[in-house]
Amino acid sequence: MSISAPPTGVRADATGFSLHAADGTAYRVELTTDLFAPGNPLLRDHLAGRQVVAFVGPTVNRLYGERIRTYLRAQLPPGSWTVHMVRTGEHFKTIASVERIGALAKADGLDRHGVMLAVGGGVLCDLVGFAAATYARGVRYAKVNTTLVGQVDVGVGIKTGVNAFGSKNMLGAYHPAYASINDPTFLRTLPDREIRCGLGEIVKMAVIRDRALFETLVAHPDTFRPPSGPDGGSEGVEDYVLRAAMESMLHELCPNLREENLARLVDFGHTFGPVIETASDYRVAHGESVAIDMALSSQLARLLGLLSEADCDRITDLLLRLGLPVHDAATCTRDLMWQALRGAWERRGRRLHLVVPTGIGSATFVDDLDDLPAGVLDEALVALAAAARAGRPRRLVVA
Amino acid sequence: MSISAPPTGVRADATGFSLHAADGTAYRVELTTDLFAPGNPLLRDHLAGRQVVAFVGPTVNRLYGERIRTYLRAQLPPGSWTVHMVRTGEHFKTIASVERIGALAKADGLDRHGVMLAVGGGVLCDLVGFAAATYARGVRYAKVNTTLVGQVDVGVGIKTGVNAFGSKNMLGAYHPAYASINDPTFLRTLPDREIRCGLGEIVKMAVIRDRALFETLVAHPDTFRPPSGPDGGSEGVEDYVLRAAMESMLHELCPNLREENLARLVDFGHTFGPVIETASDYRVAHGESVAIDMALSSQLARLLGLLSEADCDRITDLLLRLGLPVHDAATCTRDLMWQALRGAWERRGRRLHLVVPTGIGSATFVDDLDDLPAGVLDEALVALAAAARAGRPRRLVVA
Repeated sequence: MSISAPPTGVRADATGFSLHAADGTAYRVELTTDLFAPGNPLLRDHLAGRQVVAFVGPTVNRLYGERIRTYLRAQLPPGSWTVHMVRTGEHFKTIASVERIGALAKADGLDRHGVMLAVGGGVLCDLVGFAAATYARGVRYAKVNTTLVGQVDVGVGIKTGVNAFGSKNMLGAYHPAYASINDPTFLRTLPDREIRCGLGEIVKMAVIRDRALFETLVAHPDTFRPPSGPDGGSEGVEDYVLRAAMESMLHELCPNLREENLARLVDFGHTFGPVIETASDYRVAHGESVAIDMALSSQLARLLGLLSEADCDRITDLLLRLGLPVHDAATCTRDLMWQALRGAWERRGRRLHLVVPTGIGSATFVDDLDDLPAGVLDEALVALAAAARAGRPRRLVVA
Repeated sequence: MSISAPPTGVRADATGFSLHAADGTAYRVELTTDLFAPGNPLLRDHLAGRQVVAFVGPTVNRLYGERIRTYLRAQLPPGSWTVHMVRTGEHFKTIASVERIGALAKADGLDRHGVMLAVGGGVLCDLVGFAAATYARGVRYAKVNTTLVGQVDVGVGIKTGVNAFGSKNMLGAYHPAYASINDPTFLRTLPDREIRCGLGEIVKMAVIRDRALFETLVAHPDTFRPPSGPDGGSEGVEDYVLRAAMESMLHELCPNLREENLARLVDFGHTFGPVIETASDYRVAHGESVAIDMALSSQLARLLGLLSEADCDRITDLLLRLGLPVHDAATCTRDLMWQALRGAWERRGRRLHLVVPTGIGSATFVDDLDDLPAGVLDEALVALAAAARAGRPRRLVVA
């Protein structure tokens, strides 16, 4: 009898998704509700029998710290777990923070058989994941994604890392979490701006590959916001949106987990975005910079004849209806945007691979700098500024 | 037609060895002479077409820096390569050094398609390898092992890392070099103490699995030393010893590259050794601490009835004949050696896995602390001190 490896790909089931990549990497992303309720066995089952050093950011510590400690106290043997708070935010996404995480784990006596657990947003998970990737040359890593961006985007992939040498994510590792858990309950306490940033990443998935998801967002722009939260009537919609976005992201990641192929549709919104985010010194949040980039890339696609004016308008309108910016006067300059294009061209192996939509639910690449005639970028920026002015309430434009 | 993966294992050929591990990891270790001679194409063939940022330590820079730069200047396009010097030694094996290496590479514009090249000993390769493992989430890594330890031990494996939180190699990564090159020409300029340290690691391989290699060392204790160097008559012996030690090491590593199995015969000499090395603040060099550990472990094996007195004496005698210490009064104390055993027990998943020889060319494990009766360690330490006193010239005992 021979044991055959499971086929590569992404499979959905009642409690989450399983991903099997061609290189042998395999992991699950699980869905649950009320993860730290006394009766929920999911996390305990993952951690039982191992030493656990857990890390939370200040906000999760304030809102959920006691609940997390109570859960671990009830479920794990005394002395087998600790919880530490580490500072988060892009300014603390540094190698020094990773060293601090490692030093705390070492002080707790964590060895290579233990687990580092992250309960938090993208920055915390990137920090703890990188620490887990390098501590004793790699220890088990489990994560609970508490933000919408984490649950639909970074949290379902295997990238970890820190900012260094003036660049985002310049040091890092691919380190799959052996347990990655999404619990929409956490979204109830998320600030509205964080919800908007997550919606930006969901729009990304919708535009590049899921028209039905796009239409759902158009019909339900208040998804993940009160009153359509715990007491509202659209939990079914939220569940659908969350699962659809997760599944799309996992499908896009699976054949290219370690980014050997640099032409990635999930880079939609991530060519101009990082420069906007960095140049604003993080005044523009990640999801906001993604939204501005998507609006700009859509204008470019329209001007290049790749996207109809109607679809371009629908994308811009949806972003505005979701409360996302489509322009940022201080950073959306011709110079910075060209710098972003040149930077992407270098980063992506001297190919541009700019993702542009060709409709709602489909996209393609502009592969060379020469494919963007002089003037097109200028015209797109002018159109974008006008769209932002004409759009929803002015406050939605970050400025 | 189906393409089948090459079988796992280690294969020798005229120019080196190929390793194929079950998890898909594959790499070569190549043998050449006079690597930086103008007519040697080996390194150029590995580097051509890529940006190269090379790193050397102070000694290699002094002895070979100009030769390396001349070679790269002749073989690679201008502007495609740089050479930097970084400080080495265990005290500089830190995360700060890895950051410095990354910053230098970033300043040179290295992207994820480039190569970090290390030309040096174990510490330099561990630093550059770890930097390569984490820079842009992993860039290609090539290494030229210039020390005997590097050529037969660490240099043929995939471990990289730095000391942190008061422990050796506490942060690191498994990152195979896509090119690993051994050139015995470098050994001609190696200080005698470095040669002795390398011989310690070769004795390790001989004792655990290669009796013929052991007998060769007994017959040729001056291997790798003048006059049996470039002008001597035993280049054939040196070539045999180098290849035999490399091949044995690769065979031991191959089924267990990422150390999932913590019972490793190549840990012979590496249970008490690291504590001796650290407690002496690196006064006792790595290979010397390995030698002392091997002598101590052999005494323990003898007292436990696992090794004959004659074979125990032969091992001790060979170490002394090679100029290696078998005792260090300041660190070979009962307290520190018990601490070493307890530390190994914790590190190895609450199992001791102490490697002890059962003959010349065979070894086994003492798996539990309880298998070492009280008094046996004391008796072994007394016997060891006596062997050191009775042995070859007193200066060989580090004290």
